[in-house]
Amino acid sequence: MACFITFEGIEGCGKTTQLRLLADNLRSGGLQVTVTREPGGCPIADRVREILLDAANSAMTPMTELLLYAAARSQHVAEVVAPALAAGEIVLCDRFTDATIAYQGYGRELDRGVIAELNRLATGGVRPDLTLLVDCPVEIGLGRAMARINNSPGAREERFELESLQFHQRVRQGYLALAEQEPGRFIVINGAGSVEATAAAIVAAVLPRLPKG
Amino acid sequence: MACFITFEGIEGCGKTTQLRLLADNLRSGGLQVTVTREPGGCPIADRVREILLDAANSAMTPMTELLLYAAARSQHVAEVVAPALAAGEIVLCDRFTDATIAYQGYGRELDRGVIAELNRLATGGVRPDLTLLVDCPVEIGLGRAMARINNSPGAREERFELESLQFHQRVRQGYLALAEQEPGRFIVINGAGSVEATAAAIVAAVLPRLPKG
Repeated sequence: MACFITFEGIEGCGKTTQLRLLADNLRSGGLQVTVTREPGGCPIADRVREILLDAANSAMTPMTELLLYAAARSQHVAEVVAPALAAGEIVLCDRFTDATIAYQGYGRELDRGVIAELNRLATGGVRPDLTLLVDCPVEIGLGRAMARINNSPGAREERFELESLQFHQRVRQGYLALAEQEPGRFIVINGAGSVEATAAAIVAAVLPRLPKG
Repeated sequence: MACFITFEGIEGCGKTTQLRLLADNLRSGGLQVTVTREPGGCPIADRVREILLDAANSAMTPMTELLLYAAARSQHVAEVVAPALAAGEIVLCDRFTDATIAYQGYGRELDRGVIAELNRLATGGVRPDLTLLVDCPVEIGLGRAMARINNSPGAREERFELESLQFHQRVRQGYLALAEQEPGRFIVINGAGSVEATAAAIVAAVLPRLPKG
């Protein structure tokens, strides 16, 4: 029954909301679901997450960033993802290896061979069974992300939200290229519409793909 | 005039004290010296250092540890070591790439090919000109390290000091094997004697190796 499903997409695409809605839906059907996210998902990786997202760390080099993501992923897979899958659960993870390829490979234009090798080291070979790419135009996603920041007193822009529009365009194109390369694993979901329409599209896409209990 | 000198050795070998004494000696001779250490040496790497050394993080996997060292090194080389060398300074660094081979390769018995690749990614090819291996028996080193902890109110054992005697034996043997493999770069210094005797041996070894200004 174990199934590893990752949610991917640019800032503001709605994937985090959609992940929660899918978890609720699956749990109400009686399934055991672990919800987690990257970077983070366990105490050691959460401390790495704080370093990665802190806008004060503007001096961080792209290679340092890539290595920190790999370190957080290594701990998260070992402590959370692999044990939950071994216990036969459905694991829903907000961002995973594809995010590193899209953000650091396409966005920062780091060597994709190096990224693939670090993903391999960090995951020990654990791969998603299904990846939902919640896709929307960059203008819509960043608009939502900025509205979220402006509506949260005390919130501040994080490192990735400060990147240029071109950066986020490259990330989106990277995600779409990955989906094209692995059509058996990826499902591209339109994230530009309403929360309800997107949630319905995700349920319709996921249910037939779940392993039979 | 630039020269990159690293200090290596097991816990309690005396390398940190010796590094400071050599820095004082070189500065009193009018040389520009940058003193730094790993993991750490700059704000982002210092935050990674806190995670690495925190004894509460006993769940950390060997691969996570290795990737965190690489991340901290990447930032430290880019922000501190490479700029100081480019400015023609002498850089004295407390632990560097050899520590990762000794501790994670020999101590934790991780794949040394993977470690070499991560060292390459993290340093961008920056290599020490000279490495001082301050060597002493494990019993002497750990005895000094424990005395230091017991004499500091509020200090607590850190992750590496909690490792077994066998672990530290493997680390020492790893350092000695590295020194044998690269006799042109390594100088092995006896760290079992007095601070003064060790300092004199280091000055005698280093001065002829400094590039002429």
